Amino acid sequence: MIAPGGVAMPPLIGRKRDGGRLTTEEWRAVIHAYAADLVPDYQMAALLMACFLRGLDRAETAALTDAMLTSGERLDLRALGVPRLDKHSTGGVGDKVSLVLAPLMATFELAVPMMSGRGLGHTGGTLDKLEAIPGFRTDLSLAQTRAQLERLRCALIGQTGEIAPADRKMYALRSATATVEAIPLIAASIMSKKLAEGLTGLVLDVKRGSGAFLPELERGLELARTMIALGQDHGCPTVALLTAMDRPLGHACGNALEVEESILALRGEGPADLLEVTYALGAEMLLLAGVARSREEALAAQRAAIASGRAAERFQQVIEAQGGNPGVVDDPAVLPQAPAQAVYAAPRDGVLARVEPRAVGLGVIALGGGRLTMEDRVEPAVGFVITGRPGQRVRAGEPLATIHARDGAGLAAGRAALDEALTITDALETPPLPLISHRVTAQGVEELRAMSYEL
Amino acid sequence: MIAPGGVAMPPLIGRKRDGGRLTTEEWRAVIHAYAADLVPDYQMAALLMACFLRGLDRAETAALTDAMLTSGERLDLRALGVPRLDKHSTGGVGDKVSLVLAPLMATFELAVPMMSGRGLGHTGGTLDKLEAIPGFRTDLSLAQTRAQLERLRCALIGQTGEIAPADRKMYALRSATATVEAIPLIAASIMSKKLAEGLTGLVLDVKRGSGAFLPELERGLELARTMIALGQDHGCPTVALLTAMDRPLGHACGNALEVEESILALRGEGPADLLEVTYALGAEMLLLAGVARSREEALAAQRAAIASGRAAERFQQVIEAQGGNPGVVDDPAVLPQAPAQAVYAAPRDGVLARVEPRAVGLGVIALGGGRLTMEDRVEPAVGFVITGRPGQRVRAGEPLATIHARDGAGLAAGRAALDEALTITDALETPPLPLISHRVTAQGVEELRAMSYEL
Repeated sequence: MIAPGGVAMPPLIGRKRDGGRLTTEEWRAVIHAYAADLVPDYQMAALLMACFLRGLDRAETAALTDAMLTSGERLDLRALGVPRLDKHSTGGVGDKVSLVLAPLMATFELAVPMMSGRGLGHTGGTLDKLEAIPGFRTDLSLAQTRAQLERLRCALIGQTGEIAPADRKMYALRSATATVEAIPLIAASIMSKKLAEGLTGLVLDVKRGSGAFLPELERGLELARTMIALGQDHGCPTVALLTAMDRPLGHACGNALEVEESILALRGEGPADLLEVTYALGAEMLLLAGVARSREEALAAQRAAIASGRAAERFQQVIEAQGGNPGVVDDPAVLPQAPAQAVYAAPRDGVLARVEPRAVGLGVIALGGGRLTMEDRVEPAVGFVITGRPGQRVRAGEPLATIHARDGAGLAAGRAALDEALTITDALETPPLPLISHRVTAQGVEELRAMSYEL
Repeated sequence: MIAPGGVAMPPLIGRKRDGGRLTTEEWRAVIHAYAADLVPDYQMAALLMACFLRGLDRAETAALTDAMLTSGERLDLRALGVPRLDKHSTGGVGDKVSLVLAPLMATFELAVPMMSGRGLGHTGGTLDKLEAIPGFRTDLSLAQTRAQLERLRCALIGQTGEIAPADRKMYALRSATATVEAIPLIAASIMSKKLAEGLTGLVLDVKRGSGAFLPELERGLELARTMIALGQDHGCPTVALLTAMDRPLGHACGNALEVEESILALRGEGPADLLEVTYALGAEMLLLAGVARSREEALAAQRAAIASGRAAERFQQVIEAQGGNPGVVDDPAVLPQAPAQAVYAAPRDGVLARVEPRAVGLGVIALGGGRLTMEDRVEPAVGFVITGRPGQRVRAGEPLATIHARDGAGLAAGRAALDEALTITDALETPPLPLISHRVTAQGVEELRAMSYEL
């Protein structure tokens, strides 16, 4: 059962199964052999399930991360001569922060080598959003990425085959084997890719609430702490903010619609919650980079970069460099438009108690704008613009959203999804989560006063 | 990730992972789809690890067994008009009981459709032993098996592709994924094959002690109880004896050597422990078949069948029917003979405290007579005849064993293995386990007085 150059897996699987540990050398041997197709999927699946149920301690999590990181290439960006920062989000509905934050940060004395993923299930993916821009290519090689970072300080790319190939294989296997939601495995997967970017600092947006990957606050905090420890162990200072995903972020949910909203935000005209989360994460990046000395200074600098048009201009340059139509920044109408559009109105008087992100995300899939398997093709134009906000008092017939669909059947599917997602009650029972509730660093967890990041 | 006709596995794996249960219908769908290659190995591996760590309750174990059983054909032997009995051993070193017991039982008014396996790791396999007989074929079809049972009341066959194909695939997968030693999985694997034989009764030889698959008494008893419950749930009365595997059974360890010792036993000349275990298991079979009314009657009937030569003659007929050289029963020298032989003598005065079966079994592998993977080829002639018994007082230079090897290098390897396996001390610290210590039925566990089965 051992391929030449492979690893005798059953004793290692058995040890983890019985609650033991694998050494750093063993993790490296297993993961590198798996990346080289010398360990079969079925043995890795058994090991992953044993890891899921028995856990990994800090040293093992670090060893696993390091093994995945060293299974591939790394971006060596030291020659840029500026701090290299990135942001990672655990994923949500309407979360287009990357599209705003990356060009915004690139206007400062730092570089943003941003590697993103595709949407899967109810959450969207940055790559799918970017590819809604006609011509935009996300498959840059590492050499092209390096060259673009030198010129524009920002590159928006997908995970190449060169970066953490073991993680790519393991991620697909985990989806198929119910071994996704294990914090050490999630943390190692995220951090192996981020650490391969050769960063000097990393900011994490860990979502909480019903639409988050890990809905419970405690699990989100544990994930944040695990990833921060991994960053620390690898010499990459890491800070996390916990943000609300009990409702979509911003109004637009759907690929082209989110690009349009991102462009509005880069002009300072986007929804307040989107700008607030962007500025908060951006402030952490500017502080980590040493570009700003205080949060106030960081916020003021970001507002200035947006107000001056520099941030929008940088996005335009990045789009052009990556083959996209740069005209989209001045005229979002060049984005694909859905042929069928309809207003969704409040069916009754009351309080809009919930805008359930999971139902909205599944609605985008129902419209054809998301994917249930990695093979599904995504329709860029469809989605929702939901202007109704949780806690808002509404009257019957008042417009709460616009549905963008391929056809009449799509409109009906979109309407059904919104019926499911939007709950109108007589009184608000559970208030929405605070938008940004916790800040986690290597020093500990800080609970933020509501609105501390308010504009 | 779902093949057409397949099963959406991740939710089922996730439920078992979280300690939930699969329904009978779900087990059947999963196992049948797996047998039909519609569920990939990696999903089954993750499910098996979750089962290993979360367990299966009695209903789930029964459902899994039934699903494996119904994944293939069953022997319908009702037309034979006699009780159909079989014996299963959990495996050990020197355990050649099947070769003696099957023809012995076939001399009574019952049929023995005995399906056996190959050796793997330190334990031997009945098929490998039988194939040491020149010409002997174990790959009978179900139709050939049925015809032979009509004529001779005994067939000694391998697990055909027609019987429990899901179990064959799962067994190979479990070896490769460290999911072997889970009692519900072991029990379901054994019982699915045995129940497919269409038995009216089954006797289990559950080994205990250092050389057993499950060394601890409590685990052996649990396995026995689990298999007995499965037998009961499927209308097949089942009885188990717990027997000692803290030393090899009999003297011969190695395929041709064990055939020779089995023939001696069929003539009443075999080692006492081998005959004692054979008679005890045979008595349970005769009681289950209703052929004998008491253990005393069963023992007497067996002794008579051996003394009269009927048992040896039946073995000869079975060998001839299955293509083997029947002359072997009269002259075991027609068996393959190892070219190099040497006596192993006691290196010092003292008490032979241990004859460690695991080390003996690994010694047989070192000689080329066993296998570490299912692909290894087995050399029939090599092995050991260990006449020294645990507890025996020995003098330096006294012969304790004979090594049968391919060549001088083999003799050296065999000597090293016996140095490891045989421990001579000044005094006996731990007495050997009682040969037959417990009898387990659906009614409960009975601890047997030492020597209750003595000849």
